[in-house]
Amino acid sequence: MKKAGLLYEGKAKKLFKTDDEDVLWVEYLDQATALNGLRKDIVVGKGALNNQITSLLFQKLKDEGIESHFIEKLSETEQSVKSVKIVPLEVVVRNIAAGSFSKRLSVEEGTELAFPIVEFYYKEDQLDDPFINEDHIKVLGLADDTDIAEIKKLALRVNQVLSKLFDDVGIQLVDYKLEFGRTKEGKILLADEISPDTCRLWDKETKAHLDKDVYRRDLGELVPVYQEVLTRLKK
Amino acid sequence: MKKAGLLYEGKAKKLFKTDDEDVLWVEYLDQATALNGLRKDIVVGKGALNNQITSLLFQKLKDEGIESHFIEKLSETEQSVKSVKIVPLEVVVRNIAAGSFSKRLSVEEGTELAFPIVEFYYKEDQLDDPFINEDHIKVLGLADDTDIAEIKKLALRVNQVLSKLFDDVGIQLVDYKLEFGRTKEGKILLADEISPDTCRLWDKETKAHLDKDVYRRDLGELVPVYQEVLTRLKK
Ligand SMILES: Nc1ncnc2c1ncn2[C@@H]1O[C@H](COP(=O)(O)OP(=O)(O)O)[C@@H](O)[C@H]1O
Ligand SMILES: Nc1ncnc2c1ncn2[C@@H]1O[C@H](COP(=O)(O)OP(=O)(O)O)[C@@H](O)[C@H]1O
Ligand SMILES: [Mg+2]
Ligand SMILES: [Mg+2]
Repeated sequence: MKKAGLLYEGKAKKLFKTDDEDVLWVEYLDQATALNGLRKDIVVGKGALNNQITSLLFQKLKDEGIESHFIEKLSETEQSVKSVKIVPLEVVVRNIAAGSFSKRLSVEEGTELAFPIVEFYYKEDQLDDPFINEDHIKVLGLADDTDIAEIKKLALRVNQVLSKLFDDVGIQLVDYKLEFGRTKEGKILLADEISPDTCRLWDKETKAHLDKDVYRRDLGELVPVYQEVLTRLKK
Repeated sequence: MKKAGLLYEGKAKKLFKTDDEDVLWVEYLDQATALNGLRKDIVVGKGALNNQITSLLFQKLKDEGIESHFIEKLSETEQSVKSVKIVPLEVVVRNIAAGSFSKRLSVEEGTELAFPIVEFYYKEDQLDDPFINEDHIKVLGLADDTDIAEIKKLALRVNQVLSKLFDDVGIQLVDYKLEFGRTKEGKILLADEISPDTCRLWDKETKAHLDKDVYRRDLGELVPVYQEVLTRLKK
């Protein structure tokens, strides 16, 4: 497979075409952003860590029967994925109250939720990714009832597998964001990345932040923390 | 029936107990508020208009087989209602894009929606009534799946009746907020009020605002506008 022209440069990754129209070449960048890109820093080593963590997690999901766009890791910072049309939704799953959920609903950070909840955000940078409901999704034409049901089902299956996986290495999967896409054939497929950039991860014992909140909340160096997550997952 | 002690003073109404524990005595106040009570003004005549409009609309709904807490109009500014335990949700139905929907999702005010959509807000002044989804409702213990389904079904039936009613008098029912309560027996019942305070109403021809946006957006006198709505509904 041969890398071809740049398709899209996002906040965390570059997407390239390849000589196979169904395959994209993803490069994970050494860049951290917050506040929807308003804050931006170079963080050397982050790209490699996120590529490795995402590759490992998508592989584990595959082992448990959950397909994703992931094909294979190509290098420290690169992977190949199936090309999909991204459904413009950020699908958030929460197991423990934190962040905007805690603030908006006045539920103390760390409160275990009675069941995992799913939230949809309209992935639209210009609107600051507003929180929406299923009627909004349908009336905006982002997805239909069947797609929404499929996305929720997949998000909760992913949750079962990842919660267990992280728990086994002493990490609480507090919440995380998934993205889904449609294949040429119209199938809904898990896509994008699953990394400490897109998950809120807490050490089970110390409750230390093992994720991008270290950057967002200025709690210290990000690379050693992401390295710790990768090391534990490799155990 | 005899009026007894004050139970609750809200932003628009006073609720009194009566000698019948299942019945409350509601007094509509001459008060307008905006920005969750931050702005507040005396508006002489508003209480009587809202009491009359709400009474008329609840009666029309009853004629169409939709029950509510409304028992009868007692005076120009007062009505008796069944006492319920209010479900702390503001249930918003939208037929046409306007207000926060338009702003958050960048849909031009006045755009007709493909189908009526339902939104839930957590009725909690201290949190500024945050927009929530059905998982939030359940995880916060505000209502269960059965209640939510019933509330949505009722909200959409109300929408059919009211849309037609307003349309017949040259008014577009753009969006509105409903509240529901639980009776002693556990039945979900439409409650609170339906008035130009809680509905967004536009003149079909001129698109003039016939509702509280006149106050919120400082577009002129509120009483003649509410009077116009009542006069048309009485036709
Ligand atoms: N398999 C895929 N096919 C097409 N686009 C994808 C795929 N996986 C992820 N993307 C998209 O790649 C873009 C680049 O990722 P990222 O740098 O995280 O962007 P963003 O700044 O939008 O978060 C995102 O818009 C993401 O939705
Ligand atoms: N049938 C009812 N039984 C008990 N409470 C009710 C009933 N109908 C409405 N209420 C409540 O009466 C209160 C007073 O109304 P209002 O002045 O509009 O208050 P608010 O400032 O909360 O909007 C509200 O909390 C409303 O939910
Ligand atoms: Mg991204
Ligand atoms: Mg009210």
